[in-house]
Amino acid sequence: MASVIVAAACIFLSCSASVAHGRRFVRSSSYDEPCKEMRLYLHDILYDYSNSTSNSTSAAATKPTALSTAVSNPGFFFGRMVVFNDPMTEGRALPPSLEETAVRAQGLYLLDKKEDYSAWLAFSIVFNSTAHRGTLNLMGADPNAATRDISVVGGTGDFFMSRGVATLRTDAFEGFTYFRLQMDIKLYECYVV
Amino acid sequence: MASVIVAAACIFLSCSASVAHGRRFVRSSSYDEPCKEMRLYLHDILYDYSNSTSNSTSAAATKPTALSTAVSNPGFFFGRMVVFNDPMTEGRALPPSLEETAVRAQGLYLLDKKEDYSAWLAFSIVFNSTAHRGTLNLMGADPNAATRDISVVGGTGDFFMSRGVATLRTDAFEGFTYFRLQMDIKLYECYVV
Amino acid sequence: MASVIVAAACIFLSCSASVAHGRRFVRSSSYDEPCKEMRLYLHDILYDYSNSTSNSTSAAATKPTALSTAVSNPGFFFGRMVVFNDPMTEGRALPPSLEETAVRAQGLYLLDKKEDYSAWLAFSIVFNSTAHRGTLNLMGADPNAATRDISVVGGTGDFFMSRGVATLRTDAFEGFTYFRLQMDIKLYECYVV
Repeated sequence: MASVIVAAACIFLSCSASVAHGRRFVRSSSYDEPCKEMRLYLHDILYDYSNSTSNSTSAAATKPTALSTAVSNPGFFFGRMVVFNDPMTEGRALPPSLEETAVRAQGLYLLDKKEDYSAWLAFSIVFNSTAHRGTLNLMGADPNAATRDISVVGGTGDFFMSRGVATLRTDAFEGFTYFRLQMDIKLYECYVV
Repeated sequence: MASVIVAAACIFLSCSASVAHGRRFVRSSSYDEPCKEMRLYLHDILYDYSNSTSNSTSAAATKPTALSTAVSNPGFFFGRMVVFNDPMTEGRALPPSLEETAVRAQGLYLLDKKEDYSAWLAFSIVFNSTAHRGTLNLMGADPNAATRDISVVGGTGDFFMSRGVATLRTDAFEGFTYFRLQMDIKLYECYVV
Repeated sequence: MASVIVAAACIFLSCSASVAHGRRFVRSSSYDEPCKEMRLYLHDILYDYSNSTSNSTSAAATKPTALSTAVSNPGFFFGRMVVFNDPMTEGRALPPSLEETAVRAQGLYLLDKKEDYSAWLAFSIVFNSTAHRGTLNLMGADPNAATRDISVVGGTGDFFMSRGVATLRTDAFEGFTYFRLQMDIKLYECYVV
């Protein structure tokens, strides 16, 4: 009966649904009405600049490439890969502990432009909070723009099989020593309990 | 007519389906009733520890990062990237040939914790067997836990456009010289012939 | 009314659709009738071989691995990671500018075989043309074969939430100095305006 109501509702609302005894699939095709949304802030502190083993959350995994040292402005490091395990928070403030937070982003970013900032990202958001347990998996281009969209390509646990789009905005940038990204995550394909 | 029966069946079973003259889409939202499932074992032998060119299946692609050498327990190599081309088997035993097997996993893993094990994975499973031809593409976080779920974000060939979840369990771990992962792959979105 | 016609059409054609006031979801399960398709050529010029800062579009991000220098044919560089920011074009010719083109591919490829060519790819196609704005995100295995299929795992902007398959064919190969890939991109899940 619930499924019939859901199906009927979907004629009028921007979604479609199919019901199963595990989870119910919900699709939203309206930008403004995702089936799930949240805003999170990612904090990244690169060891190679902070020189703090305890306060860093990421590390340059590669040496400067031959190309990056050959160009006139080597500061952008074409080819650099950084591995990160960054805390994420609901507010802007750094969390009390950088090592143990309920939400973390783990993965890599690449720098991929010769004389300007441009990056590419692939990572997982790992939720281990009272509100959520599970992961979201994301990838996408991160060019030098006010906002940029990347894809949520899958999820597990509470985010079983989810898909969506995350809009990134650089909220603070102190060189590579510290930057904070605002992530507006909107899921348009959800499997809800 | 077949499609009508499929659609009717889906009212009672945990799936939804749409029919095309290429493939039929099937969705399962029930954890226990994926539209396709299989168990495979991945065998990884890191050259940097085995020192065997013929018997190794992976290689550290990066040098130790400045961060990993600075922390008190440098064995976990925060920032290390390993490239692998690992045989996968249906049983636990190593295959007769490490170089030529019907199923292989190709991609990378990163280590991303300072003083403990934590990894992140992105790879493809390439099937070239009598049973299956095609690929599955996966990514996700691989923390130090008994089991961890990663996303199947796409597929090709026999696994055209598939999505699902793979549950990983470390089945053997001899340092980085050899480890074996059990992967329980469950697809919940399938395009079936 | 349009949505009713779409839904009705989908009974006879190979698609399914649900309508929202944002976008309409369209699924095609027929290989030959994707909801969107395009052919693009990717041009890759590796700095490490071309030695041209202005004319290169990619860079080896890692040094040769211990494994790659130990095997008898070290030319395949098991474990090498290359970061690229490659121009893409509709035709085969190199674009007038390698740095500024309306379509670019940004990401990484890995080499993952000891004595033969085999690669693995993860990247975004960034569209900034009059025809399209947005991104497609792709990943998959790239073995030594005439054609190989990788997954389109997501999209943003004009390609909001798209999924599909891209078929790669090496169209020119001048060692690692220059290669050109033909990409036939077919989307089977689209959210159309």
